[in-house]
Amino acid sequence: MELVTIDDIRAAAERIRGTAIRTPLLAQPWAQRSPLWVKPENLQPIGAFKIRGAYNAIAALDESARQRGVVAYSSGNHAQAVAFAAKSFGVPAVIVVPDVTPRVKVEATAAHGAEVVEVPIAERESAAHALAAERGLTLIPPFDHPDVIAGQGTIGLEIAEDLPEVEVVLIPVSGGGLASGIGTAIKARCPRARVYAVEPELAADTAEGLRAGKRVDWPAERRARTIADGLRSQPSELTFAHLLKVLDGVITVTEDEIRSAVRTLALKGRLVAEPSGATALAGYLFHGDELPAGRTVAVVSGGNLDADLLAELLTG
Amino acid sequence: MELVTIDDIRAAAERIRGTAIRTPLLAQPWAQRSPLWVKPENLQPIGAFKIRGAYNAIAALDESARQRGVVAYSSGNHAQAVAFAAKSFGVPAVIVVPDVTPRVKVEATAAHGAEVVEVPIAERESAAHALAAERGLTLIPPFDHPDVIAGQGTIGLEIAEDLPEVEVVLIPVSGGGLASGIGTAIKARCPRARVYAVEPELAADTAEGLRAGKRVDWPAERRARTIADGLRSQPSELTFAHLLKVLDGVITVTEDEIRSAVRTLALKGRLVAEPSGATALAGYLFHGDELPAGRTVAVVSGGNLDADLLAELLTG
Repeated sequence: MELVTIDDIRAAAERIRGTAIRTPLLAQPWAQRSPLWVKPENLQPIGAFKIRGAYNAIAALDESARQRGVVAYSSGNHAQAVAFAAKSFGVPAVIVVPDVTPRVKVEATAAHGAEVVEVPIAERESAAHALAAERGLTLIPPFDHPDVIAGQGTIGLEIAEDLPEVEVVLIPVSGGGLASGIGTAIKARCPRARVYAVEPELAADTAEGLRAGKRVDWPAERRARTIADGLRSQPSELTFAHLLKVLDGVITVTEDEIRSAVRTLALKGRLVAEPSGATALAGYLFHGDELPAGRTVAVVSGGNLDADLLAELLTG
Repeated sequence: MELVTIDDIRAAAERIRGTAIRTPLLAQPWAQRSPLWVKPENLQPIGAFKIRGAYNAIAALDESARQRGVVAYSSGNHAQAVAFAAKSFGVPAVIVVPDVTPRVKVEATAAHGAEVVEVPIAERESAAHALAAERGLTLIPPFDHPDVIAGQGTIGLEIAEDLPEVEVVLIPVSGGGLASGIGTAIKARCPRARVYAVEPELAADTAEGLRAGKRVDWPAERRARTIADGLRSQPSELTFAHLLKVLDGVITVTEDEIRSAVRTLALKGRLVAEPSGATALAGYLFHGDELPAGRTVAVVSGGNLDADLLAELLTG
């Protein structure tokens, strides 16, 4: 299987310039034990790193495919990322969402100019493929694509540029596009740095799979138990092959640790992170004994959550 | 009176490099009417822009004065900024605080290695001057000093570099160091841009003073009514002279508008701002009819507030 290379990631960095924010590394002077920086991808225009991969994938299409438009199925940050990126190119986007999606998310996606198609949840994928065939649209997957992985990898390139002496990088893992991309960039540019994925205990299929040396399947309802609603997917063959190559380990964290990390990021980092977005920091805060000491970067992947949940996490 | 120049601000930018974060301009795609960017100074190491002026003032001291150390009186962000900057230089810092200061703030300042001296509130200023004389320390004022103004002005320089075509800049005003510095940089680098201070109605001494063409004095207890606890000071002669020269106007905002802006920044900007820090955005959100249309930057000055207040503002 052909894996994404550092050259693919460099090309992606050129393409996304001016659309994705080049987020700064933020030193956290309150950190204990190992010096800590956070990479605040929650500050991207749509509130999550997904803009990098979606934009790179659309930018890499040939002109006639791009003009016909794109389709994605997602109710989360990927939907908004594809809608936002398509709008940047002035091309049509269709987003297929389950018909149980909260109005606020449907409206946020429609606000970026996308056509939102609501279908029963079981028909999401087939409806997207049918639309792609009917209208000549290109399907933009959330993680299972080299251009998406390369786009997310630009985060690793920026970390290596801003902190070449980085020693530990912590990345939330779900479908694995983010960890695959960042890990590839870090291993190429900072070969002595260790790269760890961080995963909720309640959706720890990747930790189990890497121990077994092959993908394992956890039922969706089992993975759905975690509050980190962006970390309920599983790696594809493509992302799992990258993870096997680039990860030095997987840290699993509890729900309480994730909740506490959201609170710490808000009060000490002044950043609003959704539970998925705070998961890497939870690894730093509560699992230092499983990690090498040294200059550590935790990736904050996204910050889309509603006011009531954030207020509950702050005071709870 | 000699005012701070763009060259002073350029020199400050060289000095603070590597200590203050070069914050990005964050585009806000949800903005209505005028395109909006925020400048997130809440992401500085101590959670506020104050690090820029304090560090520049200490860096500008001659070596022997710097080695003797510095003193400041403040219970807010300036205290932590001076403590943090002094620690960066490895020199002693004494922070004089009122003996009614919450423990959490005393501890945050002490955590940066500063000696904290608690005195009755009325004795703050005299105690600081006495310590300066006794120990040969240099007093670092929160706004009434050219080096502090020049340090804060580096924010304006960064805005001009990142968005040369900026048309409107909104800055919270209190003692006036921030608005003086940014206004000076913007007027030098982007002369067609309009610069507005934003002030709580309940502490609107600057708006009244600029209408009158001279400083006016509001009693401290009158200014203390606003929830924006970082905006309860008044300009000095030095900062007022800058404001007269660089401001195109002052917008006053209500307490409810400030509260709403904190909530908007958290949910749409994924940034934790204290009420003072969200005040410029409140001007954008609720007073568009008093502002020219066009590319607008709102400065988010700080993000230090406690969990209970943030939770209340999110759900209230």
